[in-house]
Amino acid sequence: MNTPAPIDFWFDFSSPYSYIANAWVDALAARHGRGVRRHAILLGATFQAAELKSPVSYPLKREYSIADFARSARFEGLPYAVPPSFPIPTQNAARVFWWLRDTQGEDAAARWTHAAFGAYFTRGVLLNDAAALKALCAEAGLDAAAAETAWNEPAWKARLKAECDAAIAAGVFGAPFFQVDGEPFWGNDRKPQLERWLAQGGF
Amino acid sequence: MNTPAPIDFWFDFSSPYSYIANAWVDALAARHGRGVRRHAILLGATFQAAELKSPVSYPLKREYSIADFARSARFEGLPYAVPPSFPIPTQNAARVFWWLRDTQGEDAAARWTHAAFGAYFTRGVLLNDAAALKALCAEAGLDAAAAETAWNEPAWKARLKAECDAAIAAGVFGAPFFQVDGEPFWGNDRKPQLERWLAQGGF
Repeated sequence: MNTPAPIDFWFDFSSPYSYIANAWVDALAARHGRGVRRHAILLGATFQAAELKSPVSYPLKREYSIADFARSARFEGLPYAVPPSFPIPTQNAARVFWWLRDTQGEDAAARWTHAAFGAYFTRGVLLNDAAALKALCAEAGLDAAAAETAWNEPAWKARLKAECDAAIAAGVFGAPFFQVDGEPFWGNDRKPQLERWLAQGGF
Repeated sequence: MNTPAPIDFWFDFSSPYSYIANAWVDALAARHGRGVRRHAILLGATFQAAELKSPVSYPLKREYSIADFARSARFEGLPYAVPPSFPIPTQNAARVFWWLRDTQGEDAAARWTHAAFGAYFTRGVLLNDAAALKALCAEAGLDAAAAETAWNEPAWKARLKAECDAAIAAGVFGAPFFQVDGEPFWGNDRKPQLERWLAQGGF
């Protein structure tokens, strides 16, 4: 029997709904015999391609969204603290992700994903602050100096850029975004549809 | 014991997610001893206030949204046929709603809501076509000539305008939009949160 393909999961480290989805996606995939293939991207790139902006950029929607981030985390039983600065640029954290992914594999990249999301959304660690990011790398058991070298290196900058381009080419316009056997799902709130799709092979 | 307040439910007749939510909101409310207070509004007005556009106005998001409308209807077990024209202006259908609401009451307005949503989203009846709308009114058992007079009357135009202004003042920026005891919920996909909120009185 063939092993079913992993669920593709795109996220930005500054996206609260991605933080929430990252907390449930592995268990959901495992319930259906699947793995997860993570893709750290930059919402700035996909927003530009889709002519969109962050939900907190709009009048009325801003206030609702800020409250909904926290309520959606509570709904999943997750800790959540409004970060001291939001949204933030996350290219360095994303380059660390790809550096780990390519040099140590999927599991190391997934561990970093959990560590970085948890740091930003529960302890207010600003991933765009180089010193704070370096300290977080050390705390996560990484070679912090090597991580810093990686996020400044043209090769890892290009790797992230290529992943953002590939995401846009695949139709990704926001985050979290998922793909199961070619079927796209956008948003933390598509969890029930994803679950049924995996259970029934479509609906 | 006091009767709990009804769930406020705002919608636009051209909104597919509103069509879906309209199909489940009464049963959900009834499970928790609540009624539903419907508000027909125009997304054009709330989009302008919130500087938003229809999801089908954006590159990448457009294609996804069109597929997600249909998938979200299937998820709820509802019939859905892509309308021959979308989105459409719905002010006349909304004015018929308020005319019924004020002259015949909540139940008559709810029956019209079901009739108009079903006509547009399952049979492609264009609610912006005066002749088609008049025929639909007759089919729904209304006095079609009186309905047409109402949707052309300044008083019912003003009634709808006031409801759109009130929605914006209440923080409504899209549809479907709900409010339960002051707590706002936006989107067909907030159904699970709404259900838990009603069951537990918050979370």
